[in-house]
Amino acid sequence: MAESLVVGVDLGGTKIYTALARETGELLAEVKIPTEAAGGVEHVLRRIVRSVREVEKQSGSCGKIVGLAVGVPGTLHPFQGIVYQAPNLGWLDVPLKGLLEEALQMPVAVDNDANLAALGEYVFGAGQRVDDLVYVTVSTGIGSGLILGGKLYTGASFGAGEIGHMTLDREGPLCNCGNRGCLEALASGTAMARLAVELVDQGRGEGILRLAGGKDKITAESVSRAAKAGDEEALMILAAAGRWLGIGLANVINLLNPALLVLGGGAMQAGKPLWEAMEDEIEKRTLRAARRQVQVAPAALGQRSGLMGAVALAIRSHGSFAACQAKAK
Amino acid sequence: MAESLVVGVDLGGTKIYTALARETGELLAEVKIPTEAAGGVEHVLRRIVRSVREVEKQSGSCGKIVGLAVGVPGTLHPFQGIVYQAPNLGWLDVPLKGLLEEALQMPVAVDNDANLAALGEYVFGAGQRVDDLVYVTVSTGIGSGLILGGKLYTGASFGAGEIGHMTLDREGPLCNCGNRGCLEALASGTAMARLAVELVDQGRGEGILRLAGGKDKITAESVSRAAKAGDEEALMILAAAGRWLGIGLANVINLLNPALLVLGGGAMQAGKPLWEAMEDEIEKRTLRAARRQVQVAPAALGQRSGLMGAVALAIRSHGSFAACQAKAK
Repeated sequence: MAESLVVGVDLGGTKIYTALARETGELLAEVKIPTEAAGGVEHVLRRIVRSVREVEKQSGSCGKIVGLAVGVPGTLHPFQGIVYQAPNLGWLDVPLKGLLEEALQMPVAVDNDANLAALGEYVFGAGQRVDDLVYVTVSTGIGSGLILGGKLYTGASFGAGEIGHMTLDREGPLCNCGNRGCLEALASGTAMARLAVELVDQGRGEGILRLAGGKDKITAESVSRAAKAGDEEALMILAAAGRWLGIGLANVINLLNPALLVLGGGAMQAGKPLWEAMEDEIEKRTLRAARRQVQVAPAALGQRSGLMGAVALAIRSHGSFAACQAKAK
Repeated sequence: MAESLVVGVDLGGTKIYTALARETGELLAEVKIPTEAAGGVEHVLRRIVRSVREVEKQSGSCGKIVGLAVGVPGTLHPFQGIVYQAPNLGWLDVPLKGLLEEALQMPVAVDNDANLAALGEYVFGAGQRVDDLVYVTVSTGIGSGLILGGKLYTGASFGAGEIGHMTLDREGPLCNCGNRGCLEALASGTAMARLAVELVDQGRGEGILRLAGGKDKITAESVSRAAKAGDEEALMILAAAGRWLGIGLANVINLLNPALLVLGGGAMQAGKPLWEAMEDEIEKRTLRAARRQVQVAPAALGQRSGLMGAVALAIRSHGSFAACQAKAK
């Protein structure tokens, strides 16, 4: 009998990241191709199929793919497999599970990307020894996935984990969601870039501006690079974002008393100035019992948290263990 | 065979509230006696025993008490039954389970009072039809209990639910915990009274002062009464507290996507001015999917949420169903 293999797909706004894996989680092949979201739903589906064919070819394995799972940056119904809204893809009410199953002729499972990143770290990464884990991703936006009591917790309508829209400054800057002073509007990569642009508009922020090569090219990465070169203003921006992040995380620690907080996403690469400010606020603003229990750590799987979560979901949903369970019923 | 009965105890800083119940949750007798916490641990234990004897006598039932559960206002280890810290009782490291089992010669279960209030509302009250419920109590302090996925969620070290120490105003008023701008320092009964005293210190707040009968007699209840009499300043205090409460609850709704938020505690009796301000912030600050899913309701069991939670815990821990399960193992 051929070995059972699974496919995990981390579907992002800019890239499709696909891996072929054994049921142990061992990766046999991986590929990253542009999403080309502007091409529309059908086009993106064809690109997912193409990425699956590529990992199959690359691996040269004669195993049999028993199923696929995909993480999507948006709101969705995991059982029905319908993506309600994925702003970075421009998707509204896409029956992704059904469409992919038809295109690939294999079972497909779907979940939110932050949920799957939490699952990935729980099954294969930093959270293998804990039952209560919060994964927070800080990049363009801020999202999170919750593993509570050893299970992915998604709330009453699959909407849990919206830490990015926690109000921390009720008269603060406007957020994409329409509210003011959300964590995402204060500490995301987008917020860091906005703070830098505001400095430039005041005739300051020269170091950042020079590194970025123009005001409209300023990103969180330019701020981070300027800070690494010792730029005082960039360091201040990172510390300010880090403080807000620390307050948000302290609130989560007090409410959920997790054993582990895993931090991922591009903006967490900013290093020490961000982390130190963040840790200082966590130290100040958490109750002792919860603080002593919690470990705060970077994502052990780095850029692969979501991908490995998709692999984990594929194994759980379609793997031989799942098949055994189904048989036993 | 005599019918199996259980005892639930809601141990508060000022009152011991004890009930004898059938395994269906039906109450046969209940009694409220002063805690007399100043008398020390042994004294309070004797008073708990006395309350148990009283409900037994009152009910006149010939059933057999199979066990007891007690809710404690503090941090504790539920399995070991040790109360780490209960400020309102003046307790530190009290092995309550062991002491009560010795005194009563019956099995005893222990949990935090807010957790049990959540359990009470889940099993017998407003939350009987939902799986994801957050119970929030607003009185001297602000605490919460979480039912997630149909189970009491207590975190990695039984410390979950500390919504009262969610930072909402990082430069805000000092909280008992040492931090600034916690929800509890902004919206608890204590915070409402403090706001009124600050008004009086500025030569204002006459209406509240008159109703309270002296500055040092001002409580949240005086504010609430003055508001009911139409006092503008009292109404402002309630609205301010309600807004902060709404922001804190909105944060919980976005993070946990519960089906139900149950609000209990004395300060929630303040009525419309508090509730309207609270609901307005929830409306403004929650994401649509989570907002559409959640219902915000007063505690269906009123002052008995914690008591009925203790009854539920006693049934689960010591009742015949629990006994059957133990046998089956």
